[in-house]
Amino acid sequence: MSTVIGDITMSVDGFVTGPGADVEHGLGRDAEGLHAWALDSADPVDREELRSLTAATGAVVMGRRTFDTVDAPGGWSEELGYGADQDGRPPFFVVTSSRPDRVRLAGSHDFTFVLDGPAAALRAAREAAGDRDVYVMGGGMLVGGCLAAGLLDRLRIHLSPEVLGRGTPLFAGAGRHRLVQRDVRVSASATHLTYDVRR
Amino acid sequence: MSTVIGDITMSVDGFVTGPGADVEHGLGRDAEGLHAWALDSADPVDREELRSLTAATGAVVMGRRTFDTVDAPGGWSEELGYGADQDGRPPFFVVTSSRPDRVRLAGSHDFTFVLDGPAAALRAAREAAGDRDVYVMGGGMLVGGCLAAGLLDRLRIHLSPEVLGRGTPLFAGAGRHRLVQRDVRVSASATHLTYDVRR
Repeated sequence: MSTVIGDITMSVDGFVTGPGADVEHGLGRDAEGLHAWALDSADPVDREELRSLTAATGAVVMGRRTFDTVDAPGGWSEELGYGADQDGRPPFFVVTSSRPDRVRLAGSHDFTFVLDGPAAALRAAREAAGDRDVYVMGGGMLVGGCLAAGLLDRLRIHLSPEVLGRGTPLFAGAGRHRLVQRDVRVSASATHLTYDVRR
Repeated sequence: MSTVIGDITMSVDGFVTGPGADVEHGLGRDAEGLHAWALDSADPVDREELRSLTAATGAVVMGRRTFDTVDAPGGWSEELGYGADQDGRPPFFVVTSSRPDRVRLAGSHDFTFVLDGPAAALRAAREAAGDRDVYVMGGGMLVGGCLAAGLLDRLRIHLSPEVLGRGTPLFAGAGRHRLVQRDVRVSASATHLTYDVRR
């Protein structure tokens, strides 16, 4: 059975984007440092974080705003792992209340739009993933919501050295959860934390 | 010149106590795991965190609620480092709006009550500390307030594997700050993060 992993980059004060996040500024504004470990780092620890994530992924679940951001022109970064090798690309399940009119990446990526909520999306993703992992890659509302609903087996937080003050909070309304610290990897630009979520 | 270090234990969702913190429950309720690394751990990494903090401390600054908690009967834990060796005990500066009527620990600890705010307390503490470090040890409002006011050189966060959902937030109103990840140490029960605060 696959493991369901919420995987997201967070500031030390708990934000997963800067302020003013929208389709054109998926990561918010004035928060470039937040994702520096993924976008700008040559540190082997950071590269291995991305590589290991990609290699283990059997399916990806994302929220609608995250989808809109990656499907926008110029939105998807080939360097983020899944883009480089089409054969190795996992299927993507998008939690949304309505299908988009057009999908820019439809020719190269396998998107399924799930209209009946995160739990249904995770069921479909588990089925598609086989023995590999299901990654809930964002945004913050979806990862936090899956944690709140008891749907995550594991939480992987890439902790960036930023105090943003404003933005999209990861844990708003997530409630009380005991974690088990499973693995911590340290690069020059982030601390990569992996926790098991205790049931 | 001494370094001013904000040092505090925090949950993954940014709380430094559980809900319902008061003088008798200084760490809040239902949040025992938060401080397990300091109170219950035999892990050599955790012990060294406490030891190195104590050894480098030239003066300690704390808020009034933290003082009331440690000065309450049974409140001060000798195991938290400063209690064990009276000669090695640093002076303590308490930020408060009024002097307490009595100080239980007055015979064994050197408390100064500073009535004109955190910056004044830090000035006095720096003077007392000489070349050693000044530790702002809590509570969360004081550490977050010192960060917001640009008074911290360094932020040391002991990150515990807990999502508390409620409690005393560290960063409420702290604003935007760029950090530099300086040192990360990992024990079985916490990740000890040290950041320089960029000016």
